Amino acid sequence: MQSLSKTSWSAKKQSQKLADGGADKLDVWSIFTPANMPPDAINLGQGFMNWNPPEWVRDASAKAMNSDVMSNHYSHPRGRPRLLKAISSHYSPQFENLTRENRQLRPEEIVVTAGANEGMYAALLAFLNKGDEVICIEPFFDQYLASIIFNGGKPVYVPLHPPEAPEDGSFVKRTGADWKLDLKEFDAAFTDKTKVVIINTPHNPSGKVFSPEELTAIAEICTKHDVLVLADEVYDCLTFDGTEHVRIAALPGMWERTLTVGSAGKSFAATGWRIGWLIGPAELTLATLQASTRIIFCTNSPLQEAVAEGLELANEKRFFPDQIEAYQERRDVLCSYFEQLGLSFTLPQGSYFVLVDMSKVKVPEGYDFPEVVKGRGRDFETCWFMAQELKVVGIPPSEFYCREHLQFGEKFARFAFCKDLDTLHAAGKRLLGLKKYIQ
Amino acid sequence: MQSLSKTSWSAKKQSQKLADGGADKLDVWSIFTPANMPPDAINLGQGFMNWNPPEWVRDASAKAMNSDVMSNHYSHPRGRPRLLKAISSHYSPQFENLTRENRQLRPEEIVVTAGANEGMYAALLAFLNKGDEVICIEPFFDQYLASIIFNGGKPVYVPLHPPEAPEDGSFVKRTGADWKLDLKEFDAAFTDKTKVVIINTPHNPSGKVFSPEELTAIAEICTKHDVLVLADEVYDCLTFDGTEHVRIAALPGMWERTLTVGSAGKSFAATGWRIGWLIGPAELTLATLQASTRIIFCTNSPLQEAVAEGLELANEKRFFPDQIEAYQERRDVLCSYFEQLGLSFTLPQGSYFVLVDMSKVKVPEGYDFPEVVKGRGRDFETCWFMAQELKVVGIPPSEFYCREHLQFGEKFARFAFCKDLDTLHAAGKRLLGLKKYIQ
Repeated sequence: MQSLSKTSWSAKKQSQKLADGGADKLDVWSIFTPANMPPDAINLGQGFMNWNPPEWVRDASAKAMNSDVMSNHYSHPRGRPRLLKAISSHYSPQFENLTRENRQLRPEEIVVTAGANEGMYAALLAFLNKGDEVICIEPFFDQYLASIIFNGGKPVYVPLHPPEAPEDGSFVKRTGADWKLDLKEFDAAFTDKTKVVIINTPHNPSGKVFSPEELTAIAEICTKHDVLVLADEVYDCLTFDGTEHVRIAALPGMWERTLTVGSAGKSFAATGWRIGWLIGPAELTLATLQASTRIIFCTNSPLQEAVAEGLELANEKRFFPDQIEAYQERRDVLCSYFEQLGLSFTLPQGSYFVLVDMSKVKVPEGYDFPEVVKGRGRDFETCWFMAQELKVVGIPPSEFYCREHLQFGEKFARFAFCKDLDTLHAAGKRLLGLKKYIQ
Repeated sequence: MQSLSKTSWSAKKQSQKLADGGADKLDVWSIFTPANMPPDAINLGQGFMNWNPPEWVRDASAKAMNSDVMSNHYSHPRGRPRLLKAISSHYSPQFENLTRENRQLRPEEIVVTAGANEGMYAALLAFLNKGDEVICIEPFFDQYLASIIFNGGKPVYVPLHPPEAPEDGSFVKRTGADWKLDLKEFDAAFTDKTKVVIINTPHNPSGKVFSPEELTAIAEICTKHDVLVLADEVYDCLTFDGTEHVRIAALPGMWERTLTVGSAGKSFAATGWRIGWLIGPAELTLATLQASTRIIFCTNSPLQEAVAEGLELANEKRFFPDQIEAYQERRDVLCSYFEQLGLSFTLPQGSYFVLVDMSKVKVPEGYDFPEVVKGRGRDFETCWFMAQELKVVGIPPSEFYCREHLQFGEKFARFAFCKDLDTLHAAGKRLLGLKKYIQ
């Protein structure tokens, strides 16, 4: 009889890519997973909503599954015709370059993917050769790193500079606009190996929405260096206080070199449906499609139908403006508690995250941290302490920096406000308990 | 104003991987896609059913979406707890190594993926380093090729030898068992670079179910060379005439080195739901999970819940035995027409494909083939002709051979019988029209 306790074949044989991409290490999500948290903790960590997608969107899934056999079978790898059409109708007016030509997105300018994540992965697979460099603006969504490295690329980091904190530690409220990209630093990061630049706006985790002026300057530099731009705009429908979301693809000369990434999960509170898409010129989406076809073959069919219905009826139902209004209230509720605590924060212009400066929070000396947290930086400790003692889970943003720049993220914690008002008030009240640890 | 007719950035800059993996070429599915076929053609090409998943499985999706917010949000990348449990309960008895130990699959021995396709892709990403060799038994499911090459591997081919045809061209009915692997050839294909062997049983497209004796011999050779086995068993619930499906992972010494691939799409007539899984020792599934987490983050949530319900109730409802009975009838109906035509075929022991020897079918000289078909081999021409003139779509199986071995597939056509009886009879009657082209 064979012994199952025997070491399996894999022990020493995993691909080098896994280690290079950091995928064999415990990631922040696995450390701050509900199983490691007190059972009654309020989770403002991972960015999922604690409500359902709208009923009319959910119902469209069941309706499709029951009325059309093909809604349960393979879709065309590019996406279902109805969804391609709905994406075209809904998003074309947001691309000024198209409206100038008085036309809509063509099906061959769209590719539907298994979430935005797989879409970006496929795009990087489609374009990266060994050693090609990809510029990421720090802090960056941690999934980029493995997507680049697994596909043979090399990440290059350019920091977004946080607003300076007053030396006396006094409270300041900044906005995403106060996080600045140094254009000279950005330009200097390009080499003859640079192939792709990832621009994320609205930006996770800072909540910055890049201004038209910033994007124009970025676009000029990207054009000068003749690179592909992967525009991660998954929070495109979540901007506040009237802040305008500008699509970098719509700027002069940029359409030809840009793939714009969108997400049904963020747009319709359906993070588990795994429906995303990329928009761009036919040649760029074709290469992405060729890669994606081999990775997943196609995206799930019934939920594509549901998302199509969502986009078809969104305007008529005023879905996105109402959703923005609700999110803005959630943001303001959560931030009011940080203001009460005197903890400086960045009021997000977009996305559903708020970065809070936790420098003034002092964890009691000798606090007993588990091994997984030790040595991971001050923010891992602060967030762990907060989760265990205050029972509110936030995410340490040093995970969104390269190893050399971890210290830039260490003073912050990221809180997701994609939760209902009652939950945010409850979390806020618990967070007031931080007072006694603030010096 | 920018011109949209301008060539986009990508024109010359796609990754070399795309070309190496053949992904930039028109694949068989894109050539024999409904858009290229007569509108009233009967599609026995791609392997999807023309019926729905069972109502009770479909309903479970809507029920989950409406009753539990978390069914609409991110799942754990490994899979939803309910589905992991259902997979364990349903499949553990099929792994003799587990029953010998009187235990069930543990959650850490399973990973749920966005279809079997993404699961195999992730496993190859997890284990292949540049230059590692992967042995594929020809004919092979064409997606393997890109999955291997995109992840830096090198495919190595060992043919499954088709039964010899009588010299006088007389009709013979063979079974999948008549397709033979030459074990010496198999053994000779290993080098010190060989890392993975893909074993597909029941086998697409031959319909062969590898016998316990064949698998034991294969297992010994894989053990001798100390390789990982990726056991593609997505047709595991579709074997006919009482043929036993043996899991190579359950053979002595094989559990430690095997990842077994399963598919809800094949099992529940839900090819568009994109739910698959891998089963294996914790270390092997962990590495696969680490890769998959970065590719897709997680698999869609509502359909995971539905598949869980499917597996939970399958035995009580006698779902799989009844399904086998229905498929066996479909197989026999379709094959009866080939018998009437006197075209030799391989009666499949499993899967839902039948390979038919089309050598005797002569396409009229000077028939006008489109460019996409020209030069792709005799079977592309035969299948194209059949689709246009007989209005029945089959798939040319030379796509399932490496470039050097295309000629082994050229005499066959593959027909899918995962269609209802009326459709199969209608297709069969049309196919009788081949008579006048048979010499």
